Parts: sequence; structure tokens; C-alpha cells
Amino acid sequence: MTQPIRYELLRRDEHSLARRGRLTTPHGVIETPVFMPVGTQATVKTMAPWELAEVGAGIILSNTYHLHLRPGEELVRKAGGLHGFMHWDGAVLTDSGGFQVFSLADLRKITDDGVTFRSHLDGSLHSFTPESVMEIENALGADIIMAFDECPPYPATREYVETSLRRTLDWAARCKAAHRRPDEQGLFGIVQGGEHIDLRKESAQRLVELDFPGYAIGGLSVGEPKPLMYEILSATTPWLPADKPRYLMGVGSPDDLFEGVERGVDMFDCVLPTRIARNGTVLTSEGKRVMKNARYGDDFLPLDPNCQCKVCQTFSRAYIRHLLKADEVLGIRLTTYHNVYFMLDLMKQIRQSLDEGRFLLYKQEFYARYGYNETNAGEEV
Amino acid sequence: MTQPIRYELLRRDEHSLARRGRLTTPHGVIETPVFMPVGTQATVKTMAPWELAEVGAGIILSNTYHLHLRPGEELVRKAGGLHGFMHWDGAVLTDSGGFQVFSLADLRKITDDGVTFRSHLDGSLHSFTPESVMEIENALGADIIMAFDECPPYPATREYVETSLRRTLDWAARCKAAHRRPDEQGLFGIVQGGEHIDLRKESAQRLVELDFPGYAIGGLSVGEPKPLMYEILSATTPWLPADKPRYLMGVGSPDDLFEGVERGVDMFDCVLPTRIARNGTVLTSEGKRVMKNARYGDDFLPLDPNCQCKVCQTFSRAYIRHLLKADEVLGIRLTTYHNVYFMLDLMKQIRQSLDEGRFLLYKQEFYARYGYNETNAGEEV
Repeated sequence: MTQPIRYELLRRDEHSLARRGRLTTPHGVIETPVFMPVGTQATVKTMAPWELAEVGAGIILSNTYHLHLRPGEELVRKAGGLHGFMHWDGAVLTDSGGFQVFSLADLRKITDDGVTFRSHLDGSLHSFTPESVMEIENALGADIIMAFDECPPYPATREYVETSLRRTLDWAARCKAAHRRPDEQGLFGIVQGGEHIDLRKESAQRLVELDFPGYAIGGLSVGEPKPLMYEILSATTPWLPADKPRYLMGVGSPDDLFEGVERGVDMFDCVLPTRIARNGTVLTSEGKRVMKNARYGDDFLPLDPNCQCKVCQTFSRAYIRHLLKADEVLGIRLTTYHNVYFMLDLMKQIRQSLDEGRFLLYKQEFYARYGYNETNAGEEV
Repeated sequence: MTQPIRYELLRRDEHSLARRGRLTTPHGVIETPVFMPVGTQATVKTMAPWELAEVGAGIILSNTYHLHLRPGEELVRKAGGLHGFMHWDGAVLTDSGGFQVFSLADLRKITDDGVTFRSHLDGSLHSFTPESVMEIENALGADIIMAFDECPPYPATREYVETSLRRTLDWAARCKAAHRRPDEQGLFGIVQGGEHIDLRKESAQRLVELDFPGYAIGGLSVGEPKPLMYEILSATTPWLPADKPRYLMGVGSPDDLFEGVERGVDMFDCVLPTRIARNGTVLTSEGKRVMKNARYGDDFLPLDPNCQCKVCQTFSRAYIRHLLKADEVLGIRLTTYHNVYFMLDLMKQIRQSLDEGRFLLYKQEFYARYGYNETNAGEEV
């Protein structure tokens, strides 16, 4: 069997757990650490695929739960998988739908076999099992697919987390057995265990025994304080093999990227840059800017004077504010484009700092310029 | 004084009043007949300016009423006019706000001096006079600006139309006197007169006496039957000078372009292609398609197999339908891009048919393929 996903460790940071690496996928080679923009419904909201390429995206994430409900995996399969359907030549990762299904709260029922849930779109009844999720992800055809897991809520009792973890480990093995395209799609296992370091360790070790081409860390950034998230992360990555990629699921504010990379994470995804863009908030080298604010009304500077993206090279804050105030689609197109560029460029700078052995220095510089401190975690400048 | 707008008549059609011409503006030379996409709030809805260039737009229209209310002409002036504000290097035409203000019905009051009206945004009180509108249009800085006119409703009594026409002619002279940038912006007069052919003639002759660099025909496509519109058009254009461009305001379904060109019109604008795009309807060489229809659910053909636009070269009907059903912005981006391309390409084909002396033949071919006939005026295929 050819392993479709290969990771090459290029360099270890001398002062932290950070790593520079390279991920080979059936749709391109990706330098890590990497940020993956989120394209929930087979589109990164407001962006065309050629714009994703322009801003430097090499891999995007899409959501199994949403695509299963609409348009259905069978249509996507017929279209040549997600790549053909959305006309995206880069790599794609699909999540397992677990996070979405378990977020449905009253609408779902969990057993050891799987989960029964009602669609948030029309209330129709569906069921996800490790086997059915593999079938869906095989049809969607992403380069990297995620095992079906349960993401326990925070806070949860230790007893709940333990039971949930057993189930997730059992499901991981069932996913591996049910995966029908192992030559074309790399299946990642997901470490769970809530806030319990011993359970995280057990989860990691048991998954490593199953031997996946990559490992994700799930169940973080679900409501726990950031210091706790970082503590769990620090205690988890050392149990994962150095020759496999590590993916921190659903995490990715600018500071989270630094903290995650510092703790040995290679891959990130987050809706933050695209979601806040649609509310008119942009990420800049000097912190966040809420572009609907009156102060930008006659400000003819670019969103971020230090940014090289097409939006910052072309349009003024005043114009973008006008578009946002007038509910013009171009407004959220421009803020989204900029924010995604910003995150990908930030990760590029992080990789460069790793190449040059000055990662922690760069982190310090970035935090100072961005305005991170104990009382202001990157809030508006 | 240098006239900023010059029209060159290249060729007359032998079988109709159609003309091939060339319009020189401070922002480029435009081949006529031409279709102008509408960018009401300093943006053609959903499109970036580089996309307008891609689809071949040479001139776009923007709305004085909307821009006066938001963001205000003073900001646009400071940004270097509409060209600088929206970063558009092609030509721009601004309407006079008359049509919008008179559409406000209960919210406005007309006197011989001008119109007092309440903003549709916040109810604030504003007033437009020929002088204030010129000041606004001078600040917005479009290449072509329109005189402030009253657009009478349809139907209206002859008495009302006569009174309104006197006022509009008086206002045209006041606009000419108040225009402060005649070397940089060409001011067009607007022929009114409702459905009364003698009033249309009088209106045209009186405006020609005032000597404008171009003439618009207003007050059509406001509810009257299409045959009546074509009749009025046929009776109006012969009174306009051959060496000046003629612009039919707010008109532009595909059949209207043919009928207008046949009657000697050089310029058109219409929100139709962009508005219906946002409802998911596309214009194709075979007629309109309502893309949310279930029949397109697993249709992997392009929107229009005969179209060379980037959207048709890239995406399937099934993908675009999915985006529209899922309320994804990319969906209306793609339908808008295609529809604007379609209209501009159609006009290019019309120009070519004029160059080759086969305009009426081309019209016949297009109607047959598009499915126009007595019972089906370009409805869904």
C-alpha cells in the first residue's frame, strides 16, 4: 500500500517543541506549520478557488456534516470529489462531522454504535457510525480524512470523558477497518481525553498503536481557559510520533498559532478569520480593526499598511467601510480575502522564523506589535 | 473649452437606424453600442473592479441619489472621485438621482425649484435642485453626468407630462449653467415627454438647442407596454443629432438591446443582469435558467455551454446550484459575473454584426436560439 500522506521533519526548534516540516499529499506539497482556511460547504465563504491560490492556501478544510446534508456526498462523488466539485486543485481535509453532531445537543442520541441526529436544516433523521462516516468521507474524496470521534463538552465529569474516550478509541479502530481508499486518502486519528492529562496520554498511545499517517488533537478550544488548553497541548504532543503530522483541530487565532507551534503542532484550522471578516473585523499587524467604526469613515490608508495582499494594495479603509455599511457583498469579500491572506502570511513568517532559528524572538516581536499583553489579548487597536 | 466626451459615427446600418460608433471619454475609448453595468453604491454588486475589466466593461453607471446619502459626495471627492474611491480605471456615468427621487412617491415634494425628499435610509430631509445635483455630480467626478430631470410616472395625464417636461427643460438649462467641470465631465440632457410623440419631439429639439455632448432618452421602461416603448423610441431618435451619442436610460433585457440598437440607441444600462443573478437566474444563449431548480441538481454542464466566461469555463450548474441553495456568497458572485459577461458579450456580437452589415440577421438568429416569440419573451428554457 502506498501511503498518500507523508510527513518529513525538516528542522526542530532549539528552544521549544516547534517543528518545520513538509507534508506531501496527492494534491501538492505543503510546508508546515500550516493554517487551513475553512470551506464548510465546499466553498471558503465569499472566496473563489483562484483567490485561495492567490493568497497562498495549499490545503483547505471542508465539513462532512454539512456536505452530507447538502448537497449529499453522492453528488460530490459524481463531480469528481470535492476537488472536482469546487474546482480546487490544492489539498483538502474533511473533518468527521463528530464535532458538529455532538454540538447539536438535544437533537442527537449517542450509543456505542454511533450517533442518531436531526438535521439542523429540515429536522430529518440521520445516523453517523464510524462505518457510515468513512463511506461519506471516501465519497467526498479529500486528501486527509478524519476518524469519527466524540468531542466531549467542557466542562464534563471525568467519568463522562473516560466513557467517551473508550468509545472514540473503539471508533478509531472501526474507521481504520472501514476506510476503503487508503491508497488515496490519509486517515488521521483524533486524540481526545478532555482536560485530563493521563487520558490524553492514553488516547495518544492507543491511537499510535493503531498507526495512522497523522494525528489530530481534538476537544480543545471548546470553552476551557486558554492556559489550560496550552497545558494540555504541552502534555499531549510529546506522546505523538515525531515522523507524523499533528493537527490541532478548530484552533487558530493569531496567538493560538504561535502557542500551538511552540508546543509542536503542525496543522491548524479555524473559522475565525473568515467569520470575523463577515462582521467587518480585520486582522492586522497592529491588532484587530472593527471596520464599521466611524473613525475609518475618511481614512484612506489600507486595512493594514504592512500587508502585501491585493486588497491592501488597492482599496482604502474608507471605501471598505462604505461597502460594509451599505451591506455590499464586495465589502465582506475584501475583508475575508485580507484576513485569510493575513493568517497564511503569518504562518509563512512563522515558518521563516523557524528556518532561521528565531521563532521565539519572532513571537515576541509579533505580540508586541499586535498588542498582546495580559489585559489585551489582541483586541481592537 | 475641450469637450471631454466625443462621439464618432463609424457606420450606419443599411436596414435600420442602428449605428456603430466610438465614444472617447477621459477614461478610455468605448465602442458603441455599449451596455453599462450598474454599480449603484460605487460597486457593481458582488464584483471587484478587476472582474469588471475581465468581463470587458468599459463604462459603468453609478447612482447619485444613493451616493449622496451614503457615503456622501464629499468623501468620494476626497478619494479622487468615483474612479479613485472604487479603484476603477474605466469610464463612469452618474445618473442625476431624478429617477430615484421621483420613485419615492409619498416621501417627496416637487416644485419648480427642485425636489424635497426624505432618505429611504433614515428619513432625513434632503433637497435636490439642478444646481445641487450638479455640485454632487461634479464631486463624484464621473466622465458622463446626467442633467437633473423629472421622470413622470406611467400612466400620467398629458397635462402632467407637459408641466413636468417644461420643468425638465428649464432644469436642463440650469444644469448646464451650474456645471463647474465641463472640461472634465460631459453633461447629457435627458429627453422626456412620456408616451406623447409630439412632446418627445419638442423635448429633443429644445435640448439640442442647448447643445449637449450627448442625449439620453428617459421615462421609458417605467411600466408601459414594450411595443409602446419601441414606438416612442422610433419617433424620438430621429430628432437627435447624428454626431452625438444617444443613451436609453435603465433599459436592457437582451431583447431590449436589439430593439434599442435597431432604433438608433448607442448606450444602455440596466440592473436586470445583476439583479436576477442574485435571485439565481442566469442569462444564456438558450434563454434564462432559474438555477435553483431541482433539474440542475446533478447537471454538470456549465451555465451556458456556448459561453467563454471564466465561470462557464470552470464550474458546473450542480456546484452553482449547491452554492445558491446553501446561501453561499460565491453562488451570486458566479451568476453575476456570468450575467454581466453575457450582456457585454452580446453587445460585442451586436457590434460585430453591425461591422459586417448583418445586424438584423443576427437579431433573428439570436431570438430563435434564445426562444423569443409572441408567447415567450425570453422566459425560462
